[in-house]
Amino acid sequence: MDIPMELSLEQKFTLKLYEGQVQDLSAEESQEFLLEVLRQLMVKDNMVKHLLRERLMPQNLAI
Amino acid sequence: MDIPMELSLEQKFTLKLYEGQVQDLSAEESQEFLLEVLRQLMVKDNMVKHLLRERLMPQNLAI
Repeated sequence: MDIPMELSLEQKFTLKLYEGQVQDLSAEESQEFLLEVLRQLMVKDNMVKHLLRERLMPQNLAI
Repeated sequence: MDIPMELSLEQKFTLKLYEGQVQDLSAEESQEFLLEVLRQLMVKDNMVKHLLRERLMPQNLAI
């Protein structure tokens, strides 16, 4: 498996920018964003699981 | 493409639990969690992109 687990340099930079922006958020705002990002993480989780399942059983792709 | 974009019932329930827990977080705590979840989202993004690329070009799997 050569699935990348590291962030690209560009992503690391973007994360640095987020660090600055996040500090300006109120507790309510950051709680709200946190929930939304957690939701998106779950969606991505499902996508990864689905794609990994396909990867293991590529014959299912045609179904 | 039949990649799932919806949350499962279990995930929706977990998200509801998070809603309650997130309200107890201070601004600092939720900012910190937000950044960590954003980072994880980027990692998942990379995984999805990688798996989708493989899906389009399955011959690369063997390389």
